[in-house]
Amino acid sequence: MKILIVGANGTLGKAIAVELGARHEIVGASRSHGDVRVDLRNMASVEAMFRDVGPVDAVISAAGKVPFAPLGELTEAQYLEGLQDKLLGQIRLVGAGTPHVRDGGSFTLITGILTEQPILAGAVASTVNGAVEAFTRAAAIELPRGIRINVVSPNVLTEAMHAYAPYFRGFEPVSAARAAMAFSRSVEGRQTGQVYKVW
Amino acid sequence: MKILIVGANGTLGKAIAVELGARHEIVGASRSHGDVRVDLRNMASVEAMFRDVGPVDAVISAAGKVPFAPLGELTEAQYLEGLQDKLLGQIRLVGAGTPHVRDGGSFTLITGILTEQPILAGAVASTVNGAVEAFTRAAAIELPRGIRINVVSPNVLTEAMHAYAPYFRGFEPVSAARAAMAFSRSVEGRQTGQVYKVW
Ligand SMILES: NC(=O)c1ccc[n+]([C@@H]2O[C@H](COP(=O)([O-])OP(=O)(O)OC[C@H]3O[C@@H](n4cnc5c(N)ncnc54)[C@H](OP(=O)(O)O)[C@@H]3O)[C@@H](O)[C@H]2O)c1
Ligand SMILES: NC(=O)c1ccc[n+]([C@@H]2O[C@H](COP(=O)([O-])OP(=O)(O)OC[C@H]3O[C@@H](n4cnc5c(N)ncnc54)[C@H](OP(=O)(O)O)[C@@H]3O)[C@@H](O)[C@H]2O)c1
Repeated sequence: MKILIVGANGTLGKAIAVELGARHEIVGASRSHGDVRVDLRNMASVEAMFRDVGPVDAVISAAGKVPFAPLGELTEAQYLEGLQDKLLGQIRLVGAGTPHVRDGGSFTLITGILTEQPILAGAVASTVNGAVEAFTRAAAIELPRGIRINVVSPNVLTEAMHAYAPYFRGFEPVSAARAAMAFSRSVEGRQTGQVYKVW
Repeated sequence: MKILIVGANGTLGKAIAVELGARHEIVGASRSHGDVRVDLRNMASVEAMFRDVGPVDAVISAAGKVPFAPLGELTEAQYLEGLQDKLLGQIRLVGAGTPHVRDGGSFTLITGILTEQPILAGAVASTVNGAVEAFTRAAAIELPRGIRINVVSPNVLTEAMHAYAPYFRGFEPVSAARAAMAFSRSVEGRQTGQVYKVW
């Protein structure tokens, strides 16, 4: 398969590229690394990426950034920033990518444990993740030509604990390699509309 | 208790006002009906409503509108329209309302079955509902002074079937009066961070 990974250079994306690169052709993308440049916040950029890359069997998102701040201090601009990046960015990937995904191909999006298990200062992350998971279930029943869509929701990653440990006390970290397996299950399996929880 | 219901004149809101009005003082609000006027899409309007109404024990949202269209035809503007109204509208209600809610008081928001059970053309509704439910879980751990927050997720309402039946074939409608009971459970109970499913 030819697999496009947006965010292939990140903590999670690198592990996905290792897992799937053992068996498939990987095209890596992000704003500043990889085979092709893209900014998910910009629809024209997402469309240009798909024109460059051509037909693919699978599209993976390992990108998405949201602001963290105490609930009482969050501004509307911060909610919109998170929604524009991790929610609408992934929706743009599906919207622009669908014509370029081969019959029976797949999208695999990314959320995280905060959808269900919140942390202090994480309201935007939770909100955006909940939106992405429900979008995935809805898109699954409408995508054409047998194209599938799933989402992977990992716990905090072991590789990120150096930075995130204070916010995730008591959460059991999972390795990026383990989270990457769920992407393989989505891409190489046949399910659709699933949230693969890695926790 | 003094209970503010935004959307008190709607299909669902009317039933909530009947259920809770039997035991409590109700203040109804919406863009064009009720004791006070408010447009949840506008933060200044939400803040003005709370200044007018003064301290309350409970805030209920029975408003929220999202566009419906096939996945492949949805525009970014339509996603933003739904997010601005039903998601950010309810987040504004919590943000502006918190200082006006008495200790131990509550917010009760509204989503719907589409969070988990999608229908054709309902991707924006599902996306927005998923966001509201995850926001509710996150806000529950950060609200001050024992203030609680829950969300009610009803199936399609019997009273709305004249318009919605073709989109909800096979869904078992619930009466607005039954959905209203879940609002009473949120307001008069002590739980927080819950999604009360009425289906
Ligand atoms: N780290 C964790 O513990 C953890 C746990 C659960 C879920 N997640 C989720 O997993 C995803 C990736 O996290 P991570 O820790 O791997 O992040 P990361 O190390 O910061 O990597 C993010 C990757 O996405 C790219 N990227 C960022 N913004 C982009 C944009 N607007 N358009 C295109 N590419 C963009 C980055 O490259 P450029 O800078 O070159 O664009 C990079 O390749 C996030 O959604 C995160 O919430 C992470
Ligand atoms: N009907 C169903 O079958 C069903 C099922 C599950 C969930 N829901 C959800 O329940 C909620 C209410 O649905 P409904 O069927 O009762 O709707 P409805 O009959 O159209 O009533 C909506 C109410 O909200 C007010 N409103 C609308 N936009 C507003 C805004 N921007 N700011 C302030 N108030 C606003 C309306 O009054 P004004 O026009 O005067 O503003 C009206 O009072 C929606 O979120 C809907 O998705 C409905």
